[in-house]
Amino acid sequence: MSSAVQALRDRLTELEDLRHAAALMGWDQQTMMPTRGATARAEAIAAIERVRHGKFIAEETGELLEAAAEELRSADPDGDDRRLVEVAARRWDKSRRVPTSLASEIARAGSIGQRVWVTARSSNDFTAFAPYLERNVSLAREYVTCFENFDCAYDALLDDYEPEMKSSGVSRLFSKLKSQLVPLIARVAPVTIDDSPVNGSFPLSRQRELVAQVMALMGFDPAGWRLDDTVHPFASGIGEGDVRITTRWSESYLPMSLYSAMHECGHGLYEEGIAPTLRRTPLGRACSLGLHESQSRLWENMVGRGRPFCGVLAPLIARLFGGAQSALCSDSLFRAVNIVTPSLIRVEADEATYALHIVLRFELEQDLIEGRVEASDLPHEWNTRVKQYLGLDVPNDASGVLQDVHWSAGLIGYFPTYALGSLIAAQLWERAEADLGALDEQLAAGQLSPLREWLREHVHRFGAKYTGTDLLKRAVGDGIRVEPFVDYLRRKVSDVYGVAVSELDG
Amino acid sequence: MSSAVQALRDRLTELEDLRHAAALMGWDQQTMMPTRGATARAEAIAAIERVRHGKFIAEETGELLEAAAEELRSADPDGDDRRLVEVAARRWDKSRRVPTSLASEIARAGSIGQRVWVTARSSNDFTAFAPYLERNVSLAREYVTCFENFDCAYDALLDDYEPEMKSSGVSRLFSKLKSQLVPLIARVAPVTIDDSPVNGSFPLSRQRELVAQVMALMGFDPAGWRLDDTVHPFASGIGEGDVRITTRWSESYLPMSLYSAMHECGHGLYEEGIAPTLRRTPLGRACSLGLHESQSRLWENMVGRGRPFCGVLAPLIARLFGGAQSALCSDSLFRAVNIVTPSLIRVEADEATYALHIVLRFELEQDLIEGRVEASDLPHEWNTRVKQYLGLDVPNDASGVLQDVHWSAGLIGYFPTYALGSLIAAQLWERAEADLGALDEQLAAGQLSPLREWLREHVHRFGAKYTGTDLLKRAVGDGIRVEPFVDYLRRKVSDVYGVAVSELDG
Repeated sequence: MSSAVQALRDRLTELEDLRHAAALMGWDQQTMMPTRGATARAEAIAAIERVRHGKFIAEETGELLEAAAEELRSADPDGDDRRLVEVAARRWDKSRRVPTSLASEIARAGSIGQRVWVTARSSNDFTAFAPYLERNVSLAREYVTCFENFDCAYDALLDDYEPEMKSSGVSRLFSKLKSQLVPLIARVAPVTIDDSPVNGSFPLSRQRELVAQVMALMGFDPAGWRLDDTVHPFASGIGEGDVRITTRWSESYLPMSLYSAMHECGHGLYEEGIAPTLRRTPLGRACSLGLHESQSRLWENMVGRGRPFCGVLAPLIARLFGGAQSALCSDSLFRAVNIVTPSLIRVEADEATYALHIVLRFELEQDLIEGRVEASDLPHEWNTRVKQYLGLDVPNDASGVLQDVHWSAGLIGYFPTYALGSLIAAQLWERAEADLGALDEQLAAGQLSPLREWLREHVHRFGAKYTGTDLLKRAVGDGIRVEPFVDYLRRKVSDVYGVAVSELDG
Repeated sequence: MSSAVQALRDRLTELEDLRHAAALMGWDQQTMMPTRGATARAEAIAAIERVRHGKFIAEETGELLEAAAEELRSADPDGDDRRLVEVAARRWDKSRRVPTSLASEIARAGSIGQRVWVTARSSNDFTAFAPYLERNVSLAREYVTCFENFDCAYDALLDDYEPEMKSSGVSRLFSKLKSQLVPLIARVAPVTIDDSPVNGSFPLSRQRELVAQVMALMGFDPAGWRLDDTVHPFASGIGEGDVRITTRWSESYLPMSLYSAMHECGHGLYEEGIAPTLRRTPLGRACSLGLHESQSRLWENMVGRGRPFCGVLAPLIARLFGGAQSALCSDSLFRAVNIVTPSLIRVEADEATYALHIVLRFELEQDLIEGRVEASDLPHEWNTRVKQYLGLDVPNDASGVLQDVHWSAGLIGYFPTYALGSLIAAQLWERAEADLGALDEQLAAGQLSPLREWLREHVHRFGAKYTGTDLLKRAVGDGIRVEPFVDYLRRKVSDVYGVAVSELDG
């Protein structure tokens, strides 16, 4: 390997090793750390990030990037080295445009905002939270002014989570999605489906067995994975051979632990599947949050809530829990975990209404960044749109505008990636079905490895080598589209509710 | 605060925050990390240490140290700022004398050596290990040549663990110690004491309760502490409000979990007790390993194996385990946990013979560094001295020269601090008894907080502000001495074995 490329790689590898430390500190904070350690931990994470940022944006990195690009002028444009240099150069340029003082102020305000939000949500007090939210919005507005190369302000934010995606494209996708989902939801929401199979009494020790068995089928390997408990489930790829996921448990509602675990395991499989050759480089992570979410939603919803795999789950649940569950049939389970009904809380929403929660947040974020809405207007704006999109009255801000942590932490531009994940998952699923031939039969037999290997081959191993859109084009021959998801949803809802697909058309 | 001091503090604070990250990675590696994550973790720890070392030894740090020293010329020599600058300057000077290539080779060889040692020990194969040990010894010999300001080669190594301590002083202490212990051991070792009270069947869930109750008496606070399981127990102060200790469990031998936990909790109390004002500075850690070990041994042996606290433990054990233990009396427990008998394995040795294990290692280390013994001679040398000091034949190297991890990891100069810890503990104990008046009565009533607060006041809060010797002088008015430990041991052994103290004189 040539010398400039190697020197660049050495420098970037060290920064990725520092990221390993930051990732572990973040994981520990949410799973293991004693509460009184919080302040020291926040400082330690900030120190790592400051060192990492300082070394990354240094002039030296720029010189190495330039020299490496020069060296690679005639190299394969698709080779790891060329992609590494291009991806790193793009990030370097973006990071350098943000003054260090602004970057650290954003981090600080996000950290304070998050703490205030916890109390504000639990006491249903938007007014106490409003000034912190305003501060985050004003910093985000300042952040976007650092860039000239985006079509609109919001694009600069979106790009942090979904590189090279434009909000105009997301808007087109989401408005089509909304127009298709609203009539579908309206048609079936009034119909009642029996949810008793998944509500009842489920001893935690048996739930742990269930989750362990399902994780094992997915590919969870105790030599390279951990599963821990948290209030807010998440997945984190700490380093090669070290994937950590968490889930949460309810003794009375079985899907909480099971589907959180499948969701996070989906994320974990992505982290695990990144090619060893890309590890400890800027390409050694997921290409975008939308792609990441496509993996979690695919495993949670398309596998876990799909009719074939419900045929594996139902007898497992019957055997483990006995009693009321001992006669559980796969059809009842399938219907009970796929009820479509508008609800107030995003993280508890079903697959169909979930997307509307996201559309609403995406629209509000654009309005906030472009100054059409101020932070103080949010409760009113929120409640109006919930009524409009979901037909629900919001009884209090805790179940409304205060429900999510994101804005309190300064994460604006992040929400749309959740719904993009649903769209991408459906596109990948279509292609995997075509390639694998007998996907449903495999899932019905509990054989999850062919699907996992397909995803590894077409998605995971590439890390951040391509943008989400480019990766999707390579995998399925197309950019992000709405139709596969809507088609999938219509077929499923038709199956669950026993109505013709044609009745569910927009 | 003046500007140069503040600038120095800012720089050093960042380095301490990186140390927080390294400490967490080390803890996680031994308690939580999936096995396949080991390689990536080793790289990440190395990266943090490299960045930390690089920033510390930089010219810039030296300039800040100089400017700060200048600013503080007329400041209180005992003030935190002055001490901070002096301690940091000494470490800076020592670190800078070691070429980065040598430092990283030492780290690399230690990491490889440790891995080889694990296999060599389990297969009882010294020959396979010898070349790696030779390498570590030869690197240690090279390391000591970096310094001119030590009286002898070994002092440079000892100083890394026990700053400013000289091996001539340790030799004097140890030769006196040896001469006093050998006859004491010879007198009582042939006598049999009933050890059945602590051998038997002890369900782990009950052991966990016992340990939790004892830890709570010591000051373990779940909001700021963790207790986890490991094969090799340790304690780690991650940051303010975050102390982590581990222990190990045997279903058939109760002292293993209980006394490991008390030992590590003693270390943890030291970490917890460092003054908040010294945190996140180079003074915000223990002053030396000897002082650290004094805390663990004091709690494990002088409190935990002492007659007064055995009066608290015995009824607790009787109640928790019932059966054969239900009639356990404090006297039987006290005698069972204080049996003096020469044994092959250091970590399983009693208080009296333990010191001889250390003396033996200290002498061999000096011989190795000064070239009187080569690595290949070690099994023979080891076995000869074990026969001489402990009267035992070593049946195999796994129970002999291969038993400890230290040399495999390149840690030479570390062992003596264990025995220094015993000496210091006895000195502190004498003074605490005098100050507290009713220490035995307090311990017998399970009141451990007066002792803990005394230690906090006289030891813990000072962090690394003073050397071990200076701290001890402030606490007890004297440097390290052998007599208090030997006196303590004679009184205890006399009590356990029912022989007059005069019969135990050297």
